[in-house]
Amino acid sequence: MSTAPTFTPNDVNGASDLTALLEPVAADIAVAEELLETNMIDDNPFVADLLSQIFQAGGKRLRPAITLLASRATQRQDLEFSRLHIILAVLTELIHTASLVHDDVIDKASMRRGKETVNRKWNDRLAVLLGDLLFAQASICLSRIMNPVIVGIYGQVLGDLCAGEIRQMRQQYSTDVDWDAYIRKSVCKTASLFAAGSHSGAILNGCDNETIFALKEYGLNLGICFQIVDDLLDVTGSTSTMGKQAGSDLQGGLITAPSLFILERKDAQAARLKELINTRAVNEETGTTEALSIIRNNGAVEQTIELSKRYANQAKEQLTKLPTSVFRDSLGSLVDYVITRTS
Amino acid sequence: MSTAPTFTPNDVNGASDLTALLEPVAADIAVAEELLETNMIDDNPFVADLLSQIFQAGGKRLRPAITLLASRATQRQDLEFSRLHIILAVLTELIHTASLVHDDVIDKASMRRGKETVNRKWNDRLAVLLGDLLFAQASICLSRIMNPVIVGIYGQVLGDLCAGEIRQMRQQYSTDVDWDAYIRKSVCKTASLFAAGSHSGAILNGCDNETIFALKEYGLNLGICFQIVDDLLDVTGSTSTMGKQAGSDLQGGLITAPSLFILERKDAQAARLKELINTRAVNEETGTTEALSIIRNNGAVEQTIELSKRYANQAKEQLTKLPTSVFRDSLGSLVDYVITRTS
Repeated sequence: MSTAPTFTPNDVNGASDLTALLEPVAADIAVAEELLETNMIDDNPFVADLLSQIFQAGGKRLRPAITLLASRATQRQDLEFSRLHIILAVLTELIHTASLVHDDVIDKASMRRGKETVNRKWNDRLAVLLGDLLFAQASICLSRIMNPVIVGIYGQVLGDLCAGEIRQMRQQYSTDVDWDAYIRKSVCKTASLFAAGSHSGAILNGCDNETIFALKEYGLNLGICFQIVDDLLDVTGSTSTMGKQAGSDLQGGLITAPSLFILERKDAQAARLKELINTRAVNEETGTTEALSIIRNNGAVEQTIELSKRYANQAKEQLTKLPTSVFRDSLGSLVDYVITRTS
Repeated sequence: MSTAPTFTPNDVNGASDLTALLEPVAADIAVAEELLETNMIDDNPFVADLLSQIFQAGGKRLRPAITLLASRATQRQDLEFSRLHIILAVLTELIHTASLVHDDVIDKASMRRGKETVNRKWNDRLAVLLGDLLFAQASICLSRIMNPVIVGIYGQVLGDLCAGEIRQMRQQYSTDVDWDAYIRKSVCKTASLFAAGSHSGAILNGCDNETIFALKEYGLNLGICFQIVDDLLDVTGSTSTMGKQAGSDLQGGLITAPSLFILERKDAQAARLKELINTRAVNEETGTTEALSIIRNNGAVEQTIELSKRYANQAKEQLTKLPTSVFRDSLGSLVDYVITRTS
């Protein structure tokens, strides 16, 4: 039996320190950060309170960073950088956070980013209201951008987020190997919002279609890569780095890339994993532990890493279509960060 | 002791039969009805299933009717009626339904329109997802209208709905008489969406500001009137006509117009009602029954009817600024319907 491979940073292209690579947009992110906590709805201080409680709880701000880097990378030299790009970044993070808050209700999750979820700390009712509040703030941001094409892009993102959640619900405990369905679900749940953030700034900048399309593809591929790494970390991570228990996807019947690589084999390991899932043995810790060790000891981790690298490379390829700049360099380093992250 | 007044139809201006008064836009409503059940997000039949389950469960379609009547009443004779007005009507109903589904989770409601709520029939998790799905469909409709001003109007409506819910939450069991706060909450919870529907069509029709403003004021006043009547029906209605238990607002600590009219008096009745609320006696059936009889037997029902009539008249006044048409007539009759409705 082979030793389970460990998945550590620096094994692909040298992982970058996130703060360092976001340096070119650090000032923009600081402005966005303030806006995230601003009550745009009315003068009720309770709303601002709720917003600061959510946004001071953490988060890597990956999506607004991508949005800002892509906006800066495609900015016309003859125009000043518009505040609308900051609003775009804020709106992208608002939608992300809103969907997390509601997903945690739907998935009955109790831990997120190493902290108690809103539904756990308070209750489902406050979590519903908070999520709605964040979606409302996002809609107000969207209206300030005054661009009907961007309204359409983000409207579809909201639809995709629900569609992804529904697809995931309906594929629970399914041991059919359908890679296409897995990737489509990852696009809906994650990549659609990454892509919206990555190419909307170029639309605002009035870029040509080739640039806009390249940035959309960058976001889509990076988003799929991000989701695959997320699914991998659920298999390889520890509670201390992940902020939630390893194997929690499997425990909830969520069959992702690492499991699919085992299930597509026609051998005893595939049969055993299938059995553990079909009998719901994975719901209990002993079942999850056995399933995880099947996955870890039979090459599925390496195969998943390879899969994520394929999307990472496709994301990077798109960047060659942009003019060189520190912003483009950071977009490239972000791909390395995503593929080597451990949390 | 005076006999409790009953609040029946036909005591103001002669109530109109809803179907008859909506006749001028019946064909438009039929098209809107189809669109309400259309999955705009993807090709997943499960989404269409969920949508038809929700929309076949009923609802009076008052908001889309107002939207369509106002659109038709301000339509330019030289232009064909645009499908965008139908989309506007659909989006208005989608937001309304989404907020009801989430409100029922937040308020732990088990009955709505005489049927079990989504959270009761299934669970909170599906209700969260369904509400989000409806908001997403609304966003897609909004993007199809391609009008940044209308995006702004509906963005603010979403914010108002949350703000209204928060205000309501924070005013629970408060016996302070603050009419301004009561009206502001009613605007946020109800009238803001009525107003969005009533004046957005005129914006699409390129009407002058006076017409647009008149229709906005019409919607605002009608919406406030609608909310006051809603609050009144909770005091005067029966389970059979309301689809939920009478007194359920009071039982949940919701202090509305009929209670405020008693509380603002400095007499024994005011003191007793205050006590029933402060001690949470209203949470139990005997407490609610006593509170309801104080309200019913001391003129608060009549005062609330008078208050609702004031807003009804202000709504009607605005209509004089529109050209005469069957659509304008129906908008007028709708005010009578709202003020005399019993469910």
